[in-house]
Amino acid sequence: MSSTAPRDPADDRPGPDHPAPQDRLWSVEEHLEDILATVRPLAPIELNLLEAQGCVLVEDVTVPVSLPPFDNSSMDGYAVRVADVAGASEEFPACLEVIGDVAAGAGETLHVGPGQAARIMTGAPLPAGAETVVPVEWTDGGLGAGPVTGMRARSLAPEGAGGQVRVHRPAETGAHVRERGSDVRAGDRALAAGTVLGPPQIGLLAAIGRGRVRVRPRPRVVVLSTGTELVQPDEQLEHGQIYDSNSFALTAAARDAGAIAYRVGAVADDAETLRATIEDQLVRADLLVTTGGVSVGAYDVVKEALAHVGDEDEPGSGVEFRKLAMQPGKPQGFGSIGPDHTPLLALPGNPVSSYVSFELFVRPAVRTLMGLPDPHRPRVRATLSADKALTSPKGRRQFLRGKYADGSVSTVGGASSHLVAALAHADALIVVPEDTETVEPGSEVEVVLLG
Amino acid sequence: MSSTAPRDPADDRPGPDHPAPQDRLWSVEEHLEDILATVRPLAPIELNLLEAQGCVLVEDVTVPVSLPPFDNSSMDGYAVRVADVAGASEEFPACLEVIGDVAAGAGETLHVGPGQAARIMTGAPLPAGAETVVPVEWTDGGLGAGPVTGMRARSLAPEGAGGQVRVHRPAETGAHVRERGSDVRAGDRALAAGTVLGPPQIGLLAAIGRGRVRVRPRPRVVVLSTGTELVQPDEQLEHGQIYDSNSFALTAAARDAGAIAYRVGAVADDAETLRATIEDQLVRADLLVTTGGVSVGAYDVVKEALAHVGDEDEPGSGVEFRKLAMQPGKPQGFGSIGPDHTPLLALPGNPVSSYVSFELFVRPAVRTLMGLPDPHRPRVRATLSADKALTSPKGRRQFLRGKYADGSVSTVGGASSHLVAALAHADALIVVPEDTETVEPGSEVEVVLLG
Repeated sequence: MSSTAPRDPADDRPGPDHPAPQDRLWSVEEHLEDILATVRPLAPIELNLLEAQGCVLVEDVTVPVSLPPFDNSSMDGYAVRVADVAGASEEFPACLEVIGDVAAGAGETLHVGPGQAARIMTGAPLPAGAETVVPVEWTDGGLGAGPVTGMRARSLAPEGAGGQVRVHRPAETGAHVRERGSDVRAGDRALAAGTVLGPPQIGLLAAIGRGRVRVRPRPRVVVLSTGTELVQPDEQLEHGQIYDSNSFALTAAARDAGAIAYRVGAVADDAETLRATIEDQLVRADLLVTTGGVSVGAYDVVKEALAHVGDEDEPGSGVEFRKLAMQPGKPQGFGSIGPDHTPLLALPGNPVSSYVSFELFVRPAVRTLMGLPDPHRPRVRATLSADKALTSPKGRRQFLRGKYADGSVSTVGGASSHLVAALAHADALIVVPEDTETVEPGSEVEVVLLG
Repeated sequence: MSSTAPRDPADDRPGPDHPAPQDRLWSVEEHLEDILATVRPLAPIELNLLEAQGCVLVEDVTVPVSLPPFDNSSMDGYAVRVADVAGASEEFPACLEVIGDVAAGAGETLHVGPGQAARIMTGAPLPAGAETVVPVEWTDGGLGAGPVTGMRARSLAPEGAGGQVRVHRPAETGAHVRERGSDVRAGDRALAAGTVLGPPQIGLLAAIGRGRVRVRPRPRVVVLSTGTELVQPDEQLEHGQIYDSNSFALTAAARDAGAIAYRVGAVADDAETLRATIEDQLVRADLLVTTGGVSVGAYDVVKEALAHVGDEDEPGSGVEFRKLAMQPGKPQGFGSIGPDHTPLLALPGNPVSSYVSFELFVRPAVRTLMGLPDPHRPRVRATLSADKALTSPKGRRQFLRGKYADGSVSTVGGASSHLVAALAHADALIVVPEDTETVEPGSEVEVVLLG
């Protein structure tokens, strides 16, 4: 940690000679821009395909082999020459000699000569000499008794196909044949760098034989809550204690954002313990999130422990504590820590404040670490449905918990930042700008969709 | 497995005396209804809070203790009596005796008498005698030199608060105090059965002290692909072979639907091997998904292995193979298998057919197992953006790969079911109804959103 001497917060008293730096109000955008300008996408690694699900590809992937890699049948039927089945009908079938089976995956191939047919399975390579495939339903299946609906299972006729087949309909050249390279051709670009790997993209990569890919890994996010008053769920509350909920909610939120999240139980309000705990966690953290202890109290341990850890020889290190022009979530800390300059966001301790702060600042940081093109939640315009006007403090951007449906949004619970129950019934944040003090029912408002 | 003798598919030849049951075309709805009527939500289990993320709660959760559990300060400041600060101003401050600190989590409490103040931290219990809190910014912080912006960190003044504080503004009763039970009250319902547990719901449960909850677990889905032609990615292709992509794409899709998914590498086209593999997997499967081998070919091993495993003494067991009035995805199998009647969906082997079938049938089954209220992907109406009319076979519901944006949808790739590359660039399925053979550009179409 740093050897920089701690400053005395009393030095920050405003006055004509010492305008206090933390008294400047940062806007939500300024704080977010500072975070996103600092947090860089993680270095790519090679992962097995299924481990790369949800990750961003960092290479253009080229098709090494055309798909399908060979002409193959799209039906179960008979591979034949076009001339041999020309004019065939049920009344006057074309009668062909069956020279054997071509199964999918068959190595050896038959040669279909004039007057001959090979029984062929879906996906099997079209044998030499054959020009088209007639589906089995257009034939007597070699049974000599009118149209059939399918082939006899091999286990019931292990000798394979032989004898004769009657074909009841003609077929054009290439009918029911998937041509080599008709899906993708060798040398084509299968997927571009920047693609997010969902199930169909993983399917395509497997289809072209790629078992491993270079992607940005999921960031490892360590979540610590702080506060001597915090007790773990299922334990007994004593007077003055509350349950630790932030570390649970934010660990879940970090996972939801795409991270591998580690929850560290509540740390008591002691600066040395907190510093030691954070230092321990650095080894598994791409991002650290703390809650609590960032305000102006004497026991605000995160601020005390981290405000002065920056090394003067390493520009850009250290954590800066700010006041934001927002409600909830006014006090915030952001910076980097440790030898790798691991980014750290210090959120306020109030459950609603910390959750709203996570949505606005941590989630975009997590998604920037992943290299996702747009790290933000979607925003829409909606009509405010309410009985009475909303009020909002001047000069602060307010984020109210809301429920959104079909272009309309209503508030859930009040503006107080401790209404964690209301938060659990919200699916949106209603944004009230800094210069707006009242919002009338029926007005159009901006809404952040959390769903 | 069953001792029922296998039927000979040749017996299924249609005729006046033997209308073949599998020749009946099932509609997409009929097949889906059959699946959803059979698949039942999994039995609930008790899970730790963070393990229950994304799961459905099966109990109404009642609040055991009011939140906040005690009146507490919402600011860092001084707990005082209202009368003592009435009329206070910067020019004429109220001068109070500081009797000590009340930190969050403090067990012992002070008593604030007339003319006294307790320095109090955010979240700390309001001490007896105090009626209101004045923020530290409204005081001189005990330093005797005008307004301050915060408290001195405890480490710099470990003796705690003492001496005198000058208060510069009055405060009303209950100002900056969060009242006991103002968030939720003991006995209130915190969350109703049926709630999906996302981060804010997990936060609420932790806040009321619930470390474990009863939920429906994530289903364990085993994905098997079949086909002798299948080779694992990164291996060398021989003639007639292709890479196994279905087991990768569908394992990813099963996870995406909320399942714990297990990928079983491709099984060769041998009924005994397949039966043995499936039997092995039953122990870890709540749902089995196979791809390939469901059509009318002689090597269609899934059909061969599973069509006749039903035990006549156990109604409802066994897998039924059907033809659906859809494209892609005509051949489908559905039923149950093993002593626990584990549901099994047998999808066609073509990559696009299997993926579309997964979206339409397996995903809703997975989400029904989870107990989710609406197991389906969202559907919207969109305007078809295209150069020429789409064509679709009469009597089949077609699902074309599309790209959707802002109320408009365009096709990606063609209708052929082997265009796995096009699928990887689609984010929607365009639905063309059974009775529609052409769709003109500019028409309104139904779209399934895959995102």
